Amino acid sequence: MHEPDFSQGAAFVRGAFVPIGEACVPITDWGFLRSDAAYDVVTVWDGAFFRLDDHVQRFQDSCARFRLDAGLPPERIRAVLAHCVRLAGLQRAYVEMVVTRGQPPWGSRDPRQAVNQFYAFAVPYVWIADEQQRAQGLHLSVSAIQRIPATSVDPRAKNYHWNDLTMGLLGALDAGADSVVLGDGAGNVVEGPGFNVFAVLADGSVATPAQGMLEGITRRSVIEICQSLGVALHQRALAAAELRGAREVFVSTSAGGVLPVTRIDGQPVGDGQVGALTRRIVDTYWDWHRRDALRTPVDYGASAPITAKA
Amino acid sequence: MHEPDFSQGAAFVRGAFVPIGEACVPITDWGFLRSDAAYDVVTVWDGAFFRLDDHVQRFQDSCARFRLDAGLPPERIRAVLAHCVRLAGLQRAYVEMVVTRGQPPWGSRDPRQAVNQFYAFAVPYVWIADEQQRAQGLHLSVSAIQRIPATSVDPRAKNYHWNDLTMGLLGALDAGADSVVLGDGAGNVVEGPGFNVFAVLADGSVATPAQGMLEGITRRSVIEICQSLGVALHQRALAAAELRGAREVFVSTSAGGVLPVTRIDGQPVGDGQVGALTRRIVDTYWDWHRRDALRTPVDYGASAPITAKA
Repeated sequence: MHEPDFSQGAAFVRGAFVPIGEACVPITDWGFLRSDAAYDVVTVWDGAFFRLDDHVQRFQDSCARFRLDAGLPPERIRAVLAHCVRLAGLQRAYVEMVVTRGQPPWGSRDPRQAVNQFYAFAVPYVWIADEQQRAQGLHLSVSAIQRIPATSVDPRAKNYHWNDLTMGLLGALDAGADSVVLGDGAGNVVEGPGFNVFAVLADGSVATPAQGMLEGITRRSVIEICQSLGVALHQRALAAAELRGAREVFVSTSAGGVLPVTRIDGQPVGDGQVGALTRRIVDTYWDWHRRDALRTPVDYGASAPITAKA
Repeated sequence: MHEPDFSQGAAFVRGAFVPIGEACVPITDWGFLRSDAAYDVVTVWDGAFFRLDDHVQRFQDSCARFRLDAGLPPERIRAVLAHCVRLAGLQRAYVEMVVTRGQPPWGSRDPRQAVNQFYAFAVPYVWIADEQQRAQGLHLSVSAIQRIPATSVDPRAKNYHWNDLTMGLLGALDAGADSVVLGDGAGNVVEGPGFNVFAVLADGSVATPAQGMLEGITRRSVIEICQSLGVALHQRALAAAELRGAREVFVSTSAGGVLPVTRIDGQPVGDGQVGALTRRIVDTYWDWHRRDALRTPVDYGASAPITAKA
C-alpha cells in the first residue's frame, strides 16, 4: 500500500476518503446517466469555512426539491467536508458536496427504488476570473441561448444542468469575451455559469434578477452588504439593455466572490473602469470573511469523523 | 490478479475493458459536474446490433452539436462496442457510447482546453416496460412539467439533461401511472423519459411531435414502418388533448421498441385495449430485426480491438 497523496485535493466516496484523482462516480449512477443530482459549493478562506451553515442548509433544500436524501445529518456533512479540507491541508479551498440518485435495482426504472449516494471533495480555491480580470474587470457576453427555464428545472435547487451555460460560454470565449450571461428569452438576463449578475443603475441603486436563477449564497451576501451600506437593491427582472446601459456591473460567485464586469460584448460598461460601488462591495465581501458569525474554523489536527452509517 | 467478471456487463473506460461494476467517471469530469456529455444507445438483439450505423452516426452528430470529440473514428467505436458485448457474452444487450468533456487544466474554466473522454458499456437488454405492461399497454401520465426547450438545450443531441423527465416520472409513479410524457408549455406533448410518442387519430393516420424532442432512431423505424404499411404519418405539434382523444397511442424507444399505451391519466385510450395498428407496428418492428440491411452481427469469438490512440 502506498501512502495516499492528498496534495491535489481529497474526496469522500462511498464512505472512504481518497485522493481527488481517485474519486469517481459509477458510470451507471443516475447522477451521471441522468444528471440526477443536487450539489452545493462552500469555500474555505484562511482556515475557515465561509457561511458553512447557509450552504449546508441550501444543499438540504436542493436535495428535498429533487427528492434526494444525503443519508447524513448536517453535522456529519460538515464533519466530512472539514476532513476533506484537513486531508488536503488547504487553507483556501473550494469544497463541494453532492448527492446522486444512485441506481435502482437492475431492470427497474423507478427512481424511488434507488439508494442515493453522498459525495464530497475539497480542492484548492477556484477563481472564475484570473488576477488581471479581477483587477480590470471581466468582459461578459450576453448569449442568445435561453437559461433552462424554471418551468423545466427548479433553478433554486443547485444542479448540474449546464449545457446551455457551457454552450453559451463556448460562444463567448470564441468571441473574445471572458464569460457569458444567459437570458430568459424575453429580453432579460438571468445568470451565468456559476454566478449571479448585478447592475448599478444611474440612480445609484442596484438591480439583480429575481427569477429563473440560482439564489446564490454569495448573491445573498451582496444583498446583505448593500443593506449594510445603505444602498437600495431591487430583485426584479433585469433587461439585457439595462445591463448594457448600467453605470457598473458585477457578478457574484463562490468561486471568486464579487467580480467586476467592465465590458459587455466589446462595449465598455459606464466609463469602462471598475466602479466605485463595485469596489466597496468587493472590499466588504472580503472584510466579512473575518466575521466570527460567518466563519467556521477548520480544525486541521482533528481525526477522521466516523462516517459509517449507524 | 483475480479474473474480471463481465457477467453483469462490460465497459470501456480510459482505454481499458472492465466489468460494469468497476466502470466509473472521475468526479471532476465535466461530464458529471456539468452534465457536459453526449451519448447514444444501440441494442443487440439475437446476436446482432440493430441499426448500428444509424446510432453511431447520430452519436457523432450529437458530439458535433456540443463540440465534443470521441477521439475514435466510427469503425473503432463500433469495434469497442462489439467487444463490450462479446466480453459480457450478451445475445441481447443495451449498449451505450458516451463522450464527456473531460476536465480543463486546473484553474481553467475553458471547455476548449479539456481533453474529451470516450466511454462505452454493454449490459443486458433493458425494457422500459415489463411483460405485463407490454401485453396490456402502458399507463401514461401527462406532466405539467415542461420539457427543457430547444432554445436552451438542443434536443437533437442526445444528452443527460433529464431532471424534468425524472421529476415528471416521480409524479407519474406516485399517481399510479407507469411513465410520463412532458409538454412544451403550450398544450402539446413532446417526449417521455427515453421515448417518443405517437397517436393514431380517428382517420387512421399517425401523428408524432416534430420539435423539441430527440429524433429517436426507433422513431425513425416507426416512420419507415408506417411508410411500408401505407399508413399516413404526420410530424407536427401534437396537442395533449389529441393524445387523450386518440384511437390508439404508442411510444418508441431503444429500450423495448414500440410499446402500446392504453391509459392516460387513468382514462382509457380508445377502447382501452392495445390497438390493431399498434400491434402491426410492434410486429413489424421485431420482424425488421431479421433484415440483413439493418443487422450487424457480433463476432463473439474475436479478440480485443486495438484501442490505443495512434
